[in-house]
Amino acid sequence: MYQSTKRKVYVLLHPALGNTLADRLLNLFIIVLILSNVLAVMLETVPSIYVSHHLFFHYFDMVSVVIFTVEYGLRIWSATADPRYKHSFYGRLRFMGTNEALINLLAILPFYIHLFIGLDLRALQILRLLRLLRVFHLTSYMKASRLIITVFRSRKNELLLSLALTLFLLIISSCLMFYFEHPAQPNKFTSIPHTFWWSIITLTTVGYGDLIPITIPGRILTGIILLIGVALFALPAGIITSGFLEESRKTKKQLPARCPHCGEELVEQ
Amino acid sequence: MYQSTKRKVYVLLHPALGNTLADRLLNLFIIVLILSNVLAVMLETVPSIYVSHHLFFHYFDMVSVVIFTVEYGLRIWSATADPRYKHSFYGRLRFMGTNEALINLLAILPFYIHLFIGLDLRALQILRLLRLLRVFHLTSYMKASRLIITVFRSRKNELLLSLALTLFLLIISSCLMFYFEHPAQPNKFTSIPHTFWWSIITLTTVGYGDLIPITIPGRILTGIILLIGVALFALPAGIITSGFLEESRKTKKQLPARCPHCGEELVEQ
Amino acid sequence: MYQSTKRKVYVLLHPALGNTLADRLLNLFIIVLILSNVLAVMLETVPSIYVSHHLFFHYFDMVSVVIFTVEYGLRIWSATADPRYKHSFYGRLRFMGTNEALINLLAILPFYIHLFIGLDLRALQILRLLRLLRVFHLTSYMKASRLIITVFRSRKNELLLSLALTLFLLIISSCLMFYFEHPAQPNKFTSIPHTFWWSIITLTTVGYGDLIPITIPGRILTGIILLIGVALFALPAGIITSGFLEESRKTKKQLPARCPHCGEELVEQ
Amino acid sequence: MYQSTKRKVYVLLHPALGNTLADRLLNLFIIVLILSNVLAVMLETVPSIYVSHHLFFHYFDMVSVVIFTVEYGLRIWSATADPRYKHSFYGRLRFMGTNEALINLLAILPFYIHLFIGLDLRALQILRLLRLLRVFHLTSYMKASRLIITVFRSRKNELLLSLALTLFLLIISSCLMFYFEHPAQPNKFTSIPHTFWWSIITLTTVGYGDLIPITIPGRILTGIILLIGVALFALPAGIITSGFLEESRKTKKQLPARCPHCGEELVEQ
Repeated sequence: MYQSTKRKVYVLLHPALGNTLADRLLNLFIIVLILSNVLAVMLETVPSIYVSHHLFFHYFDMVSVVIFTVEYGLRIWSATADPRYKHSFYGRLRFMGTNEALINLLAILPFYIHLFIGLDLRALQILRLLRLLRVFHLTSYMKASRLIITVFRSRKNELLLSLALTLFLLIISSCLMFYFEHPAQPNKFTSIPHTFWWSIITLTTVGYGDLIPITIPGRILTGIILLIGVALFALPAGIITSGFLEESRKTKKQLPARCPHCGEELVEQ
Repeated sequence: MYQSTKRKVYVLLHPALGNTLADRLLNLFIIVLILSNVLAVMLETVPSIYVSHHLFFHYFDMVSVVIFTVEYGLRIWSATADPRYKHSFYGRLRFMGTNEALINLLAILPFYIHLFIGLDLRALQILRLLRLLRVFHLTSYMKASRLIITVFRSRKNELLLSLALTLFLLIISSCLMFYFEHPAQPNKFTSIPHTFWWSIITLTTVGYGDLIPITIPGRILTGIILLIGVALFALPAGIITSGFLEESRKTKKQLPARCPHCGEELVEQ
Repeated sequence: MYQSTKRKVYVLLHPALGNTLADRLLNLFIIVLILSNVLAVMLETVPSIYVSHHLFFHYFDMVSVVIFTVEYGLRIWSATADPRYKHSFYGRLRFMGTNEALINLLAILPFYIHLFIGLDLRALQILRLLRLLRVFHLTSYMKASRLIITVFRSRKNELLLSLALTLFLLIISSCLMFYFEHPAQPNKFTSIPHTFWWSIITLTTVGYGDLIPITIPGRILTGIILLIGVALFALPAGIITSGFLEESRKTKKQLPARCPHCGEELVEQ
Repeated sequence: MYQSTKRKVYVLLHPALGNTLADRLLNLFIIVLILSNVLAVMLETVPSIYVSHHLFFHYFDMVSVVIFTVEYGLRIWSATADPRYKHSFYGRLRFMGTNEALINLLAILPFYIHLFIGLDLRALQILRLLRLLRVFHLTSYMKASRLIITVFRSRKNELLLSLALTLFLLIISSCLMFYFEHPAQPNKFTSIPHTFWWSIITLTTVGYGDLIPITIPGRILTGIILLIGVALFALPAGIITSGFLEESRKTKKQLPARCPHCGEELVEQ
């Protein structure tokens, strides 16, 4: 009887296992709660909203932490229903060390630290966002998220190399630009690190307009860097695309070259 | 005789069916009329044009609505020529519930609401634009539009996932940036939602320049976010490209489903 | 004798035919002359340069026109060496109607119109740039330029469709934005056509910063449009990439499925 | 004995050969030293840092040059351990002429020129960055860097052609824009070369906002150029992606060059 309750709780907290209405509703409730928490952390910083809803934020935070704490407790308690964490003490301890459990703990810890020690780390409550990463493990998105992770992993070296080339171009261009623009605008291009800021904002084509080259060599250099940058930023697109295609090719089943029944060769039609 | 007139009207209003000069001219006339309507709604808001062409806009709108109303009426009347909407009452009613008929109704409704009820919804006349979506059903663009829709649909999960990752990066970066920049520029980075505006304008590389980080950690964070953003925005390109390639591969020559020699079914290996 | 001179001139003026040092030098000379002409048209507009080099520009233009006129005359005279334009009168006339000859004429016409009629169309001299398009016909770039043209042509419909979708998004967003921002910034978002300017500068991520939404619904709309825009601008990249791949696949020779000598099946290794 | 020491030094200085802890540590030390040097050159230009750490930069530079000089000397001395540079005099001389040795020399030369001749070329110390290019030869990145180089090389013509098309669009658009905007903003769009700056900043979507068209034809032209630009900048992405895919296809399983059954050579069909 006790076992079956624990098992039920375990299944309830793992949406990938059960598929009943209760599972779906609980899962949806927790996702909405996390999203509301993230939204609350963001809205709290708006002075006009904070002043008029001060108490609401306080109670909403408290209620959320209570729910998250109960959920965390139930997760640890029901962890032994998982064959991997069978042992009632060491199993639960090992479960607490998993990424998922740590993220759940991180979501409630700042509140208790503030309550007991007085240290205000509530800004870290935004980390509750990390709990949403669990969404990617839902059955319907699992295939897509695995594909994206596989692509990034298989092309790690190529991507790091284009990052290195980008940083290279950024350093070279900020040094050259400093020597071109500093004499003309000593208050704008004050130093190379400051010019590095210009480089990154220009090469990524953000272009805030706070630092703008005005000398002719500076503008010619900007043009050259931007045209190189177009090719450089086409690199990650090419790398990632070829990664996607290779993965989709790997998972493709193919018709045989010969009929397995009569042995005759098959010609494409 | 009556039947044939209805049939003629039906064919005339469905450019994909007929191919005579009258069909083409009518179709072209309606497209030009819709485009002129959209242009008129836009130009009406320019004070200098509105003042001097006030009456023209008024009459042009009236004439357009009359034409669209007649067209709508003819469409409903001739709908029974379509075997799907054969029944003279329920068939027409069901036809009126189709997307196409609803869009046609939406194009004229605001005018009549203003005329009879006095409620000014004429701003909604811009919805006449939706009627242009029909262009995508023309024979010459049908293949291309189907291809694009198929690609987006088959990659829905991957695209949603990159959207989620983008939103994730936007939230994290706006929270961090608020804690870096708020003390230095309390009048610019006033709150996290306001900083979220900065995040989206920066990560999409629009860079209006109304909010610019000035602290060193804020600028380093901007650089890191932008470099991550380059990889992140290469994702949809990769996803969509691999979708296009898979579709183009599918429509190519394929091995037969059955062996042409022995007639046995062929299973993919 | 006469014929052979004409033939020599013909070959000399068509770099794709001959390959002697004279051919290369003449070709290089004309390319450099055209580039200098384009540069001259651009530099002439710089007041400080124009004032001090006024005469140089005048004589350089005159000399260029003389050279281009002689070249144009020789081309027409030697055109009959081409079997397609054999007939001494009609052949030359038909040659004068080709794109290439018209572009050559366009490069010298503005000068003569100014000289004889007095109409100053010299700004059109920038059209001499069009002559450089001939470079794409050089043997070494012909394959690449054909490939690019083929890709754009084979994907014309898909590209036009994404253009239509982009225009659609631009119109919808500028209408919505006008109704959101006009009341708040009547001097900035003055009309829908003016807001259309904002739409195009924002959606293409240029972001000059002359028009910036300040209302909350306007900013939320901007965010949504930009995220849709990322997917929309990934479309042409996907379309063009899949075009390139299909072309490269078509031109690929493949090993046979069976050895043509012994008839044994060949398995990939 | 002497030979073995030289050989040891040779292996030590070529991380790709040895794999002992000493190799890794020395390699890491040199990379960190180069990075610190680049950082020092950049930070030296920040006035507040330079004033307070003046001496530190001086000594750090001196120590670095000493280390780089010793390393350079050891490289030349041990070069004869490489069979390609066996000859003790001409071998070393030829080694000194390799790219790698020249880059190493370039990293220390400015210091000695300043010391002995007094000519201050220390700004060139940023060229020490070039030494980091060696990182791309490390075993783990060699495959990726070769792939990227092969792709760029095999698509050189297509990439040059899209560069030419981009320059073409830039010239045409800056000429047209000058004639549209100069009368309206003579102090902003002062000349065509100045408008060229506007073109490059707009077409690459940087959009600083220092030059903004205000006339209606100027804005319409901007819109058209930007929409063409989207397709134009999708070109390099498509070219590079198709390059990556072709390379990844080449390294895959292939049919044998000869029939394994009869030994006859197989010709592609």
